[in-house]
Amino acid sequence: MAEALHTVHVNLAADSLERSYPIEIGRGLLTDTSRWQQWVGGRGVVLVTDDQVGPHYAASLHSALGEVGRFTTVQLPAGEQHKHMGTVQQILDAALGDRHERQSLFIALGGGVIGDMTGFAAACFLRGADFIQVPTTLLAQVDSSVGGKTGVNHAMGKNLIGAFHQPRRVVVDLDTLGTLPEREYVAGLAEVIKYGLIRDSAFFDWLIQHASDLKARHLETVATAVRRSCEVKAAVVAEDERESGARAHLNFGHTFGHAIERIQGYGQWLHGEAVAAGMVMAARLSSARGAIEPATVAQLIDFNQSLGLPIGPPPGVTASKLLDAMSSDKKVAAGKVRYILLQRLGSPVITESVTKRDIEGLIDA
Amino acid sequence: MAEALHTVHVNLAADSLERSYPIEIGRGLLTDTSRWQQWVGGRGVVLVTDDQVGPHYAASLHSALGEVGRFTTVQLPAGEQHKHMGTVQQILDAALGDRHERQSLFIALGGGVIGDMTGFAAACFLRGADFIQVPTTLLAQVDSSVGGKTGVNHAMGKNLIGAFHQPRRVVVDLDTLGTLPEREYVAGLAEVIKYGLIRDSAFFDWLIQHASDLKARHLETVATAVRRSCEVKAAVVAEDERESGARAHLNFGHTFGHAIERIQGYGQWLHGEAVAAGMVMAARLSSARGAIEPATVAQLIDFNQSLGLPIGPPPGVTASKLLDAMSSDKKVAAGKVRYILLQRLGSPVITESVTKRDIEGLIDA
Repeated sequence: MAEALHTVHVNLAADSLERSYPIEIGRGLLTDTSRWQQWVGGRGVVLVTDDQVGPHYAASLHSALGEVGRFTTVQLPAGEQHKHMGTVQQILDAALGDRHERQSLFIALGGGVIGDMTGFAAACFLRGADFIQVPTTLLAQVDSSVGGKTGVNHAMGKNLIGAFHQPRRVVVDLDTLGTLPEREYVAGLAEVIKYGLIRDSAFFDWLIQHASDLKARHLETVATAVRRSCEVKAAVVAEDERESGARAHLNFGHTFGHAIERIQGYGQWLHGEAVAAGMVMAARLSSARGAIEPATVAQLIDFNQSLGLPIGPPPGVTASKLLDAMSSDKKVAAGKVRYILLQRLGSPVITESVTKRDIEGLIDA
Repeated sequence: MAEALHTVHVNLAADSLERSYPIEIGRGLLTDTSRWQQWVGGRGVVLVTDDQVGPHYAASLHSALGEVGRFTTVQLPAGEQHKHMGTVQQILDAALGDRHERQSLFIALGGGVIGDMTGFAAACFLRGADFIQVPTTLLAQVDSSVGGKTGVNHAMGKNLIGAFHQPRRVVVDLDTLGTLPEREYVAGLAEVIKYGLIRDSAFFDWLIQHASDLKARHLETVATAVRRSCEVKAAVVAEDERESGARAHLNFGHTFGHAIERIQGYGQWLHGEAVAAGMVMAARLSSARGAIEPATVAQLIDFNQSLGLPIGPPPGVTASKLLDAMSSDKKVAAGKVRYILLQRLGSPVITESVTKRDIEGLIDA
């Protein structure tokens, strides 16, 4: 029997109520036939997954759906390097080839890459079909599945092509973390601690205290961490669905992180690992300005190290390369790189006043 | 000096005011520097056009823009056969290659194909950039540039991939009709008379009376026809931005029209020509049910014939082929083809109760 431990509601204030949706967090949700039958309601289903997650969960989910209209499975090769328009086109070809209609429901079963591509395909399919996110990685559960950002990478950078398209529902089945490789699980914790840093100092403290339970994947600790992460993300998204203001705060650590990924080439470090390094860099800059305690930076570094996350850029990443890579980030407004730092623990600030010398200082550290 | 004869406001009732926008109809608008500088406001510009329209107007529009940020021109091959994802990808590659930012403005200078692709590219560019429609064909001026439907064709059918993305402004410069080939101009009039048929019997009568002035492209007559068409379309779109109800009425003549295009292969008949034939078919069915006068059908047929528009499907199109093609149309709900007929002149009705025999009757006629 499925157990829903928590439900978080994403309320999109600026839009109509029908676009608000629940994030359900629990165990056994993936195979809970009665829930799925209610959610799908006999519509057609396009189930998109990858060749790492699909073999574990696609068949059980398919059974749980019960009687549906047309049913299509698209199993894609796993990995960020496949997150491009060609793969989205494959999803669309399959859905159109099977003559799905606008009423059909797309289901994204996998990590962030699958969620982003499935959401984008659903956004473009007949100008907009419904989709449900079933994130199976911690990173996707606490970050990419919440907030409606969908899209793909381009030779010029990450997530440069896409759409805002909100899922109808996010189904976080914590049981799926059981098959998640250690390295990916830990990378997800980087985004979790980000929410503490930018919005909730008590949550930051709680995470620091529970680092070993988190590492051990203690169920209730993980459930609480996921719930609080989703609550923070949902609150930010509700304030600012289209990323004109507060939503930019979610990019704490990401300006540096994306730059590191670009310089290394995607697939070297996991996204969460690059963000972990980027957050230490942003925290160091904040501390150097006296905005947060050096002890907080030390706590973050300890947290990362205890989990095996990086605490700075990899060898060979120079300040010049970072600046180059950052200036082509899509968040760049009028040629100025905007840095997200902390003005105190739990409260971010956006600034353009970071010098090359500041960044050289970070590399030396 | 530019002359704005009419301004129509598109109010998207269900959404925030910032998404409402004006359609300006007049002469000399394309080269009106003071207007363009106000509209662009120094932002970057991605100007998309095709190799038929670009040579006539792109340079003048570029001059009128004055001082802008980054400027990119994308000149695409003209024609519906290029309306696919590969071409949208070209637009995105150019915009990303020149490092445009989310603040840049896309301008679609051309007919419906350019407008649909540019709008879709803008929708996907960094998850949504602004765009302005500068429709240069009558069809685009009265139909595709208004309402926010953007997208491309797919091997499975027309407009199957896309987004709803409203332009910030539609600039209808009637001077651009001067270079429009006769056949394309006339095809646009098919959509004009559609508005009379589905919404405004007085406008239908007015168009029947002014058929020869329209054919002669008498400026004030054309301006009035464009204005009234935009008003009707704007009213329908405001009622139903996402095509769940009233907006389906705009597809009067299109279920048959799209099917004819699919059977023939795109590029044989112009879209407006196929719709002209489809409208006669839908009008005949409506008349056979006693919903409109046979005299109205006769007026429509005369109108089409005086302009050189078709009044039925081309030879070789059988009822079976039509039914096959229609059942793969994306407007198909739960496998049922929905026909848009008239319940009286100026008022449409949606029905599924059209038999194969009914359609055979149309072919014989």
